[in-house]
Amino acid sequence: MSQFDDEIRLTTIGTGAYEGRVDPAWNIGANPNGGYLLTLALSALRQAAPEHPDPVSVTVHYLRPGVPGQPCRIDTQVLRTGRTLSTVRATLTQDGLPRLEVLAALGDLTDSTQATATIAPPAMPPPDQCPPRPGPEQGLDLSIVGRLEIRLHPDEVHAVAGGRAQVTGWIRFRDGRPPDTLAGVLFADTFPPSVFGQIGMAGWVPTVELTVHVRRRPAEGWMLGQFRTHDLTDGRLIEDGLLWDCAGNLIVQSRQLALVRQGGRKL
Amino acid sequence: MSQFDDEIRLTTIGTGAYEGRVDPAWNIGANPNGGYLLTLALSALRQAAPEHPDPVSVTVHYLRPGVPGQPCRIDTQVLRTGRTLSTVRATLTQDGLPRLEVLAALGDLTDSTQATATIAPPAMPPPDQCPPRPGPEQGLDLSIVGRLEIRLHPDEVHAVAGGRAQVTGWIRFRDGRPPDTLAGVLFADTFPPSVFGQIGMAGWVPTVELTVHVRRRPAEGWMLGQFRTHDLTDGRLIEDGLLWDCAGNLIVQSRQLALVRQGGRKL
Repeated sequence: MSQFDDEIRLTTIGTGAYEGRVDPAWNIGANPNGGYLLTLALSALRQAAPEHPDPVSVTVHYLRPGVPGQPCRIDTQVLRTGRTLSTVRATLTQDGLPRLEVLAALGDLTDSTQATATIAPPAMPPPDQCPPRPGPEQGLDLSIVGRLEIRLHPDEVHAVAGGRAQVTGWIRFRDGRPPDTLAGVLFADTFPPSVFGQIGMAGWVPTVELTVHVRRRPAEGWMLGQFRTHDLTDGRLIEDGLLWDCAGNLIVQSRQLALVRQGGRKL
Repeated sequence: MSQFDDEIRLTTIGTGAYEGRVDPAWNIGANPNGGYLLTLALSALRQAAPEHPDPVSVTVHYLRPGVPGQPCRIDTQVLRTGRTLSTVRATLTQDGLPRLEVLAALGDLTDSTQATATIAPPAMPPPDQCPPRPGPEQGLDLSIVGRLEIRLHPDEVHAVAGGRAQVTGWIRFRDGRPPDTLAGVLFADTFPPSVFGQIGMAGWVPTVELTVHVRRRPAEGWMLGQFRTHDLTDGRLIEDGLLWDCAGNLIVQSRQLALVRQGGRKL
């Protein structure tokens, strides 16, 4: 079993209720990565609606940071099951406090055909010509880079002072686990914030809400992500993300509302 | 009181529970417009979290069509109230069946300042040079055009066979009610589907899920909307929307996952 699958493993503790553990291997700084917490909730939802294994539309609101190394409880509810989609919700709780609220449509993306309209991937050097995601040199403890290998576009890796709110990079599991639709959701929230380039600032960009649309199942290999911020007002930004598989198929569209904390550190 | 405010009026029937009526004035064909149903739910949520009157991030999943002319019940839950945001959920029910499930963050957008990064509105002729939204000639009963005045870009009004999945238009309430952030959410789901242009098809494009981000309060006057579909695979499309106020400020970013029904009628 892959590290990721092991670290989102749950036990059933009641009707629609599951228990797991927030593994500290997925920390960014002192907090668990939000994408990882979301996959814990989705792991529960896939058990609650097993006929529809693929997350098709996922919205999460982050109510409070997760607590690494501690157990979590996930309560699920199936709102409606149709032929092609199940609509579901989940609440992830730790220490009796809700941390994530998730509303999602699950489906079955087994039989993907040709796209009628799609978004092509950007030009990108191969992974071995792309430097790894910077981390510790920014003073951040990034446990997550032990789980995920992220290689950034060489023109953007130092773009943190470059005036452009864009980050492009290859991503894969370090232990060789192939990507799937669940990984597509995870990868939508594991890149450095694209806004670091524009505002010349590092620090905390907490996500208020993230919506991920998964369009098809990915081919085996690296995935390519591109994230951009076009809209930053009053300390609230909207970041758009796209992820393609190594065959150039669009797998994910994502969008998040995040806060730029005043305490962000000027570089 | 404006028609819209009258037609989303609710009475409190219990703790966090409200009752209203789905007015048939907002029908598109035989079904109530989804944007209108969503504002009914938001009307309840604003009462449940009165300190945060503006919808900042709203996600709705449409479980079943609404029933025009019938009462509706909205049950709300406040998941968390912070200083700047309240996270809330709502279920809109008719005839004992849930129709909409809503998850939202509400805030207070009174004090909007300058945008650090934003998206400028497209070039657009003034409203009096733009023809009204077509409707009855497509065989659709569009009661909603009695409530909303929509004037489309002259190059796009016949674009239904033009090969471009884009629709741009001015929008306002017919009775002169000024736009606000609630109207911003409504207007995000009241234009003709942008995909009609690309696929040369009219018909039913039911929304599975819609997420609307409201960025600031609009100035009084017309609002300008632009909607595009870049991504259509296996009968599921993602449509992105933008709405500006008459002063050129970006008010709304929206995105929806919708189905293209096989029964869509070729034009």
